[in-house]
Amino acid sequence: MSNFTVKVIDFMDRLGRLKKNLRTRGLDALLVTQPQNRHYLSGFRAGDMNINESSGALLIPRRGRPLLMTDFRYQLEAEAEAAGFEVLVYKRGLLDLLEKILAGKGIKRLAFESHYFLHQTAAKLVNLAKKLEIEPVPATGLVERLRLCKSPAEIEKIRAAVLLNEQVFQEVFQTLRAGMSERQVAIRIETLMREKGADAPAFETIVAGGPNGAKPHAVPSERLLGKGEPIVMDMGLVLDGYCSDMTRTVVLGEMDETSRDIFRLVRAAQLAGIKMIRPGVTGAEVDRAARRIIAGAGYGKRFGHGLGHGVGLAVHEGPGLSPRYKRKLKAGMVVTVEPGIYLPGWGGVRLENMVAVTEGGCEVLNTDTTFLEL
Amino acid sequence: MSNFTVKVIDFMDRLGRLKKNLRTRGLDALLVTQPQNRHYLSGFRAGDMNINESSGALLIPRRGRPLLMTDFRYQLEAEAEAAGFEVLVYKRGLLDLLEKILAGKGIKRLAFESHYFLHQTAAKLVNLAKKLEIEPVPATGLVERLRLCKSPAEIEKIRAAVLLNEQVFQEVFQTLRAGMSERQVAIRIETLMREKGADAPAFETIVAGGPNGAKPHAVPSERLLGKGEPIVMDMGLVLDGYCSDMTRTVVLGEMDETSRDIFRLVRAAQLAGIKMIRPGVTGAEVDRAARRIIAGAGYGKRFGHGLGHGVGLAVHEGPGLSPRYKRKLKAGMVVTVEPGIYLPGWGGVRLENMVAVTEGGCEVLNTDTTFLEL
Repeated sequence: MSNFTVKVIDFMDRLGRLKKNLRTRGLDALLVTQPQNRHYLSGFRAGDMNINESSGALLIPRRGRPLLMTDFRYQLEAEAEAAGFEVLVYKRGLLDLLEKILAGKGIKRLAFESHYFLHQTAAKLVNLAKKLEIEPVPATGLVERLRLCKSPAEIEKIRAAVLLNEQVFQEVFQTLRAGMSERQVAIRIETLMREKGADAPAFETIVAGGPNGAKPHAVPSERLLGKGEPIVMDMGLVLDGYCSDMTRTVVLGEMDETSRDIFRLVRAAQLAGIKMIRPGVTGAEVDRAARRIIAGAGYGKRFGHGLGHGVGLAVHEGPGLSPRYKRKLKAGMVVTVEPGIYLPGWGGVRLENMVAVTEGGCEVLNTDTTFLEL
Repeated sequence: MSNFTVKVIDFMDRLGRLKKNLRTRGLDALLVTQPQNRHYLSGFRAGDMNINESSGALLIPRRGRPLLMTDFRYQLEAEAEAAGFEVLVYKRGLLDLLEKILAGKGIKRLAFESHYFLHQTAAKLVNLAKKLEIEPVPATGLVERLRLCKSPAEIEKIRAAVLLNEQVFQEVFQTLRAGMSERQVAIRIETLMREKGADAPAFETIVAGGPNGAKPHAVPSERLLGKGEPIVMDMGLVLDGYCSDMTRTVVLGEMDETSRDIFRLVRAAQLAGIKMIRPGVTGAEVDRAARRIIAGAGYGKRFGHGLGHGVGLAVHEGPGLSPRYKRKLKAGMVVTVEPGIYLPGWGGVRLENMVAVTEGGCEVLNTDTTFLEL
């Protein structure tokens, strides 16, 4: 669906960087269970229905050919998508197959993804490892760290997802009328995403009018949209594996003075955040630059979440733009900048764009300016 | 959306049965993290975006008022939905809040859901428990076991989901034409589900024509549907929290002799399975009754998955109808019966109905007979 193809050479580069990492840490292999990590390293695109219904795992040894283990249902996709991987099909589950594979592979220290591995499965892995005289090593973020900085081809994929998202938003916005229900609008958005070629929505679309907008994660209800109230529309899609995430808050008919002031404040905070984004600045510093504007106007307690988060194969990934994120931004990172003000009983205003960190500063990937310039 | 309301008294009954279970096992409290278990015990409906982005956890002490711990984003929903629960909001995550709560509660043995708890989080919980002189006890299936047998009100909710699913299928089936793409049909199905009031699709809809039908978990592609080929349509929805799951395989235009034979065989296997379902029979026995028919015709290796699975708040839950499930069925269980034959290069035929186990045998919840009676 995109012209910006991730080539075999990209996968080789990714595996190469990971293997170097394994060597540095004295690890002989990594078992990869996290779905986006699996996709990033192998090209195998299937997600997990949930963590209990995995579509497979990778075994990346420090030396030699990597393996993709999956079940009967995914075998054909796995063989077509994971070039360079040996595909093995398990019948009695991953651990049963692992037992056969690990014996005689010379693996002494086997890392597994502690942040996407069930306690129950880990207990079984520990037993198996003991039997095979292998040391199981909980590891976290080994692959996520590689995913933080996107290649130019990845950024173009993300940009394509952002632009498609804007098309969907504009088409729905043009037909938005008072009297439509939140649910009706959310359904229209998600249907259009798919019709225009998205793999899927990236998360459950939020359409929250009036007081419902005070809930940052509102579920679209049967409530009818009214004139003059702020309507928060938060939507994201997956295109060719990569995500977008975008929020606009819109008003039908006349906007009152209060709303206008709050919109301007949130937008000013967003711009202050974006202005701060460049390599070498921490996520906390960017968050602070935006938060200061909102707090300065007395709404500090009404902005209860972080300023933004990384986006890539996952719609929520590193880095964070939040008071707790002390690491420095680097060129190639892609983040959302989404300040909001939430007033119980009245509603909310949240504005969200996506930004790529560049060598010289940053680039806003969005082009849509609806209700940003008041 | 339904007339079959789950009442406060049902939640009290569920909590009562769980607490009795805790007493029997010498456990002082259970930490509930699994989303459907959380919903089942408290009424709090929010799902998890994924296991890393939990919308909350319950703490059910053997004595005293149960707690729901969530974050700022879900506070309003939690307070409205979880009647009888004390709602606490965490700012620095669940474990930080747990540390404050657990101190001085007299809890000596704290169970957690090992099957829906990350290894990483468990390691932190173990540390915290050590500090508080609490014994953490991995537990699995304590709540799932309660969910196996549905109450009459729950079965009516499931029936409503099944019937809505059939309406959606019929509406799409009536307009199905050769030349439509698989994707286009899948989008139409999921849009109609939502328009007709479903909470959401229960899983990614499968529409797989011709050879694509040989992949039991095919992703709808741009391939156009052709005349005479089997088209597998597997779809499920969530209505008022409860799931449906239904598969029909259809043919546009003339059906050839081979197809007709395979359809009849799969249907015969389905009927043989259904005939076997009653209290006291094991899931393996039901699976065997159906599998025998397919294997007897020489297609045993072409039916690579289990015959069926339980359905309720989750679309895949216990009991299993598969060679490995040795426990006995009981009245109130609800299962799918979905034999299939998959021939690489040709395609697949899968037929799936949902069945409730009754005191005297079973009741098929589906009414739609499209391509079942050939």
